[in-house]
Amino acid sequence: MRLDLGYDGASFVGWARQPDQRTVQGELEAALTTLLRAAAPPMTTVAGRTDAGVHARGQVCHVDVRADTWAALPGRTPASPAESLVHRLAGLLPPDIRVHVATVAPPGFDARFSALARRYAYRIYDAPAAADPLRRDVLVHRRRLDVAAMDIAGAPLVGEHDFAAFCKPRDGATTIRRVLSLRCTRETDQLVLVDIEADAFCYSMVRAVTGALVAVGEGRHDPSWPGEVLAAGVRDPAVQVLPPGGLTLEAVRYPADDELAERATSTRRRRAGTAGQPDWQTGHQ
Amino acid sequence: MRLDLGYDGASFVGWARQPDQRTVQGELEAALTTLLRAAAPPMTTVAGRTDAGVHARGQVCHVDVRADTWAALPGRTPASPAESLVHRLAGLLPPDIRVHVATVAPPGFDARFSALARRYAYRIYDAPAAADPLRRDVLVHRRRLDVAAMDIAGAPLVGEHDFAAFCKPRDGATTIRRVLSLRCTRETDQLVLVDIEADAFCYSMVRAVTGALVAVGEGRHDPSWPGEVLAAGVRDPAVQVLPPGGLTLEAVRYPADDELAERATSTRRRRAGTAGQPDWQTGHQ
Repeated sequence: MRLDLGYDGASFVGWARQPDQRTVQGELEAALTTLLRAAAPPMTTVAGRTDAGVHARGQVCHVDVRADTWAALPGRTPASPAESLVHRLAGLLPPDIRVHVATVAPPGFDARFSALARRYAYRIYDAPAAADPLRRDVLVHRRRLDVAAMDIAGAPLVGEHDFAAFCKPRDGATTIRRVLSLRCTRETDQLVLVDIEADAFCYSMVRAVTGALVAVGEGRHDPSWPGEVLAAGVRDPAVQVLPPGGLTLEAVRYPADDELAERATSTRRRRAGTAGQPDWQTGHQ
Repeated sequence: MRLDLGYDGASFVGWARQPDQRTVQGELEAALTTLLRAAAPPMTTVAGRTDAGVHARGQVCHVDVRADTWAALPGRTPASPAESLVHRLAGLLPPDIRVHVATVAPPGFDARFSALARRYAYRIYDAPAAADPLRRDVLVHRRRLDVAAMDIAGAPLVGEHDFAAFCKPRDGATTIRRVLSLRCTRETDQLVLVDIEADAFCYSMVRAVTGALVAVGEGRHDPSWPGEVLAAGVRDPAVQVLPPGGLTLEAVRYPADDELAERATSTRRRRAGTAGQPDWQTGHQ
């Protein structure tokens, strides 16, 4: 099954299951255990392993369900089994997680390894009085930002680069990523959107890149600075890693169905060529 | 001063100050006390006295500030005193309240008595799997609603009527209100919006009216039913008062500046003619 889901990350220590901690994966697998009447929690595999406090609108995961379990699911009419599953999950999950769509995944689909790209949004109110208390996914910043300068500053980061300067280091893991697009715009007069898509992200990369762009937006650094930090290739303490609450995983992109298996194979091979680090394609943010 | 503000009502027992309870008015007046260095909390007067759990985007209140206090406010440059006040309130208020704009109110302005109309929105996800966990202002409903039928059902409620059938009774208070518009539409494929504007509302009126419309939307009652309930003029136990979390005060409308004082006078006179009940124009929801 492929599950498309969203969550408010504020009350989770992140996606990944951890003992005695409230995690999205833990809550989802508990609901699936109840729903599928499984003896043990079914294991989910996720496209973007979000960090504590990070939100998601377009998260994708998959879970293997035995055909006989599927066939034995009660209460399926008049909806399809997948529609019924989604409807019943809505009743089992806490209100801060919602599975929007369930589909029988096409052959070869792997939520993590088949993905072509992840898209994240970092949102910032740059006038504190403008913040909408009903929104939970926007950082409040006390100074006005020059979004045009931020947008120019982001351009050199697009393409395949070693993003070591913007990543928390993990021994042996590659920090080479391909940023497919990076744009800074205003969603409203007082809400700045940093929209970034990449094949994958290394740990804390979006929050560090956005931190560098915000420094430009405040006028503390020239628009050339983020590109210079990137080129230096080492973590720069002047780059502030922004808090998680403004970050949302918006979407995950997959190839056409007949290319899913090939993509998963090539991604796994690529990962195996980089010291086998498990976090390569997870986009842990 | 006129203050335009919004709040997430979830963690408040309502607008109105109460001893030992967390209220919007209490938090706001505490912040104003600090800001104005006042010996006692300055009293605020509000347009729509929202109930526990009800949200606001376009709430309006006023507060009297002595000219010498105003003149003595520190840290005003380069912004205007009003801009400075809003910026500093953002730092003093909890994140679930935000004063968006402060203005020196025109002569004769009274947030409560000068208002021409209040507009409320009641929002409902009518497919539970569609709920966005990042939104806090939408009721989740498990059954699909017929919005066209709801819209037809609301039409007879527009105009001046005795809304006793939809109000929690308060001895001696009139229940005559003028509904200026009432529309049911879809904001998105799975989000139903009930948008209602009236000169004022009596207690729980929007939530009861919406409850009657939802019963029509579910097919439990004919579209003629809400109009029949209205005409009967007594509370009907079949009308469900919906929970507060889906309700938001969206906007308050005022006349042109030169008509503010006249409007306030005529509203006060009207209230005095109805046994002097204090809740007449407050739109307590």
